[in-house]
Amino acid sequence: MEEMKNFVAKDAFAKLCGVKLLEASKGRAKTELTVGEEHLNAAGVVQGGALFTLADLAFAAASNSHGTLALAINAHISFVKASKQGKLTAFARETSFSPKLATYSIDIRDESGDLVAGFNGMVYRKKEKIGT
Amino acid sequence: MEEMKNFVAKDAFAKLCGVKLLEASKGRAKTELTVGEEHLNAAGVVQGGALFTLADLAFAAASNSHGTLALAINAHISFVKASKQGKLTAFARETSFSPKLATYSIDIRDESGDLVAGFNGMVYRKKEKIGT
Amino acid sequence: MEEMKNFVAKDAFAKLCGVKLLEASKGRAKTELTVGEEHLNAAGVVQGGALFTLADLAFAAASNSHGTLALAINAHISFVKASKQGKLTAFARETSFSPKLATYSIDIRDESGDLVAGFNGMVYRKKEKIGT
Amino acid sequence: MEEMKNFVAKDAFAKLCGVKLLEASKGRAKTELTVGEEHLNAAGVVQGGALFTLADLAFAAASNSHGTLALAINAHISFVKASKQGKLTAFARETSFSPKLATYSIDIRDESGDLVAGFNGMVYRKKEKIGT
Repeated sequence: MEEMKNFVAKDAFAKLCGVKLLEASKGRAKTELTVGEEHLNAAGVVQGGALFTLADLAFAAASNSHGTLALAINAHISFVKASKQGKLTAFARETSFSPKLATYSIDIRDESGDLVAGFNGMVYRKKEKIGT
Repeated sequence: MEEMKNFVAKDAFAKLCGVKLLEASKGRAKTELTVGEEHLNAAGVVQGGALFTLADLAFAAASNSHGTLALAINAHISFVKASKQGKLTAFARETSFSPKLATYSIDIRDESGDLVAGFNGMVYRKKEKIGT
Repeated sequence: MEEMKNFVAKDAFAKLCGVKLLEASKGRAKTELTVGEEHLNAAGVVQGGALFTLADLAFAAASNSHGTLALAINAHISFVKASKQGKLTAFARETSFSPKLATYSIDIRDESGDLVAGFNGMVYRKKEKIGT
Repeated sequence: MEEMKNFVAKDAFAKLCGVKLLEASKGRAKTELTVGEEHLNAAGVVQGGALFTLADLAFAAASNSHGTLALAINAHISFVKASKQGKLTAFARETSFSPKLATYSIDIRDESGDLVAGFNGMVYRKKEKIGT
């Protein structure tokens, strides 16, 4: 977890957006975003890119938990409930794993536990070790 | 275009991320991001959320160009080339349109014209007029 | 369940492909395919379209379980394990619901319980009642 | 083209569904389906799996046109117009290419030229040559 926290701490864009890593373990991770006015779009609800970034950091932490660098190759996101404020959390879990390709499912929920967005992503792994 | 620029100018999250609207017309839009260190992830390449946000603003501008509020309901993004610096542009075009549902295809390219990411999104329209 | 079985029994394409509905209840459904040579592609593994159809019937049964006609508007599928024979099952569950739009997650597994493909779909509902 | 036709001719599932390869060249392919009652779903329109299979064969022909076996790893499809009869064609084009990963965009259109479904897929290539 410490190692993953250190690796993820280098994610400058997640920092800019205010997304924080709460937990990480083999194939799993949890991130959080406290919604502010800077996360809203022109329609006054949380921007899709902010939700994507929240899910993406959980995806990165879960997929890099095996010690070899994992690169996101695609992702699909469904927006199911608009949010305007409060705390949002993203929970990532590994749904399949092979040495080269793996898939992750990430749920974003609001404080009442309702699904805000569902995210599914795939990574490709080269042989590089993280930090080497 | 002025109306759309004014509507999109209210997107606080795109502003936070440094994404700018360059052009917008019926069913089309172009956005730009000048990559800085704040857009990089832990692996040192542009974060997926930054690319998503760049595409998403073009998607929002193109889909809201008909005068009724369009809400993104889902999006799929493929990451095909890693970027580290320079100017990225996203070009959105409408691929299908019905009063309730419409689809958009957005290409993100770097300065050499290479595809960086391909994005496909769908919107749902209620009957509300923008700005009323 | 009987009503849903009768509705789904009208799916001629699923019948052509050999996909069967095993169970259906509010927001949930299970389908099955016994792999034969007619389901293989040129590389000798189950064709993506056969897997899609297996998931799609579960998606249709689960999404039409509320009594109003649900039309699939998009779907994302990840292929994670190649299959050549045996029985495949798809299990669909509703992940979000609103009167107009709803999302479903469908897992396809083989006889050893391994994930073969992950499918996520969204439907749009008009007001029509099924069978009227 | 002859070689690709021979390879694709081995796709038993496409044959079962009535999907035919019309053209194939480097990174491009065109397939066709003449809609019959066997392609309809319970709602009386062409089943999603039939549309997916039509696109998938074009995707397979285009992605295998480089001589090394390409395996589909994921696909996203948007259903934008319901079809009940007539001839549907799918046109695939390569949108990005690297030795390991490549992406394809496939449009399904009806006889009036309207978009019926938009499909985006990604493949992974091992080093195996086709037919060896």
